[in-house]
Amino acid sequence: MNLSKSNIKLITSLQQKKYRQKYQLFVAEGVKVINELLASSLEVEQLFSTDESFKPLKNIEVTSISENELKKVSTLKSPNKVLGLFKIPKEKEIIQDSFMVALDGVNDPGNLGTIIRLCDWFGVTELVCSKNTVDCYNQKVVQSTMGSLTRVNITYVDLQEFLSNCKLPVFTADMEGKNVYSSSLPKKAVLVMGNEANGISSEIAKIVEHALTIPRFGDLQQTESLNVATATAILLSEFRRGLK
Amino acid sequence: MNLSKSNIKLITSLQQKKYRQKYQLFVAEGVKVINELLASSLEVEQLFSTDESFKPLKNIEVTSISENELKKVSTLKSPNKVLGLFKIPKEKEIIQDSFMVALDGVNDPGNLGTIIRLCDWFGVTELVCSKNTVDCYNQKVVQSTMGSLTRVNITYVDLQEFLSNCKLPVFTADMEGKNVYSSSLPKKAVLVMGNEANGISSEIAKIVEHALTIPRFGDLQQTESLNVATATAILLSEFRRGLK
Repeated sequence: MNLSKSNIKLITSLQQKKYRQKYQLFVAEGVKVINELLASSLEVEQLFSTDESFKPLKNIEVTSISENELKKVSTLKSPNKVLGLFKIPKEKEIIQDSFMVALDGVNDPGNLGTIIRLCDWFGVTELVCSKNTVDCYNQKVVQSTMGSLTRVNITYVDLQEFLSNCKLPVFTADMEGKNVYSSSLPKKAVLVMGNEANGISSEIAKIVEHALTIPRFGDLQQTESLNVATATAILLSEFRRGLK
Repeated sequence: MNLSKSNIKLITSLQQKKYRQKYQLFVAEGVKVINELLASSLEVEQLFSTDESFKPLKNIEVTSISENELKKVSTLKSPNKVLGLFKIPKEKEIIQDSFMVALDGVNDPGNLGTIIRLCDWFGVTELVCSKNTVDCYNQKVVQSTMGSLTRVNITYVDLQEFLSNCKLPVFTADMEGKNVYSSSLPKKAVLVMGNEANGISSEIAKIVEHALTIPRFGDLQQTESLNVATATAILLSEFRRGLK
């Protein structure tokens, strides 16, 4: 069998968010990532493989393609045997009854991927994103989160409206906030993290009730700021450390 | 003035570690990064700028070049006005009298950059790297660390020999270690972090005295591991939080 022209066109179009939204599909690559996604509740649309011996975890038909065909549609430097199209799942209800993370305009797919993995690690199942946060079905995000993408409920919302109506206390990171190490942190809260260059937007800043600071150490206090993903790591660890 | 052929050849050669070591030079780009480096004790070799109005922080001659010339030698997607050649500083003595970080085979320049920024933030001035750790004068590292590169003493050593002779207690991160949240951590120690895929090498594992675990939360405990940079963020925060 072959990779049809229409399939090539479809798969490459899915590198763009507008086509992912149009077709409600996204691409994942590599045996490990594909098997992680197949093990989840996600629905698979099509699987392509250069390796005839590839047996997916579930009993799904696999279309054989050549290495050259895979190269044409892959976004990886070293394409890895299998490529799959998966259906973007319907958004689920946001359960506002525990600790949540919210993102306000995070741009970089690598940062979003790291934050999704962190949420999964720390048992945070609700991740709420502003509409201008990078799409979680972006291929870089899909590849870097591995299976975590399927274990965290990621929802894109009007963040200002969401936080205004949210009953949990709203926290953020800020250079002028309270020392996180000496703050008593609630079990149930929303932690809002902002854009890489500009932090949280002024509208969201008005809603935030508590600002936390990760103190700087040393004499030469010149480091500008921590990267949003590393700051999220430290703050999540602080919110959760009392529970173990 | 123009960018000479020999300069083009020199600058592009510095993308490779062997030429950085041969010429003892590295490249930095962008007004902000260049000014951060000029403000440090680093010695500048040459500055090139597309912007005649660019005034470096120090009184140094600037060679005017065209945007096209900058494009030819830049490794950035959007070249940013200024490019500088700096001398790689002589390695300084490692001061083993406080908290240190050691890296055993960290490969990814983005991870090394993040860890250097974290060291700077947490006042860790000694970063010891195994010889097979990515070069800190790699351009991606230089660009991502901004000025932090000049405030952390980074030394490449035979890590096995170094740790064998080191008088500080040696810690690492490990899935089978002691819960970091309930461990009492010393002020002075070495924290060894390993390679992205393989962790620390077996030779180093023999020297490590204390293994720490960042506990996983949630019911679905399937996240494989934290990225080395985020794990370093959380562990550094744990070692330092008692001091503020």
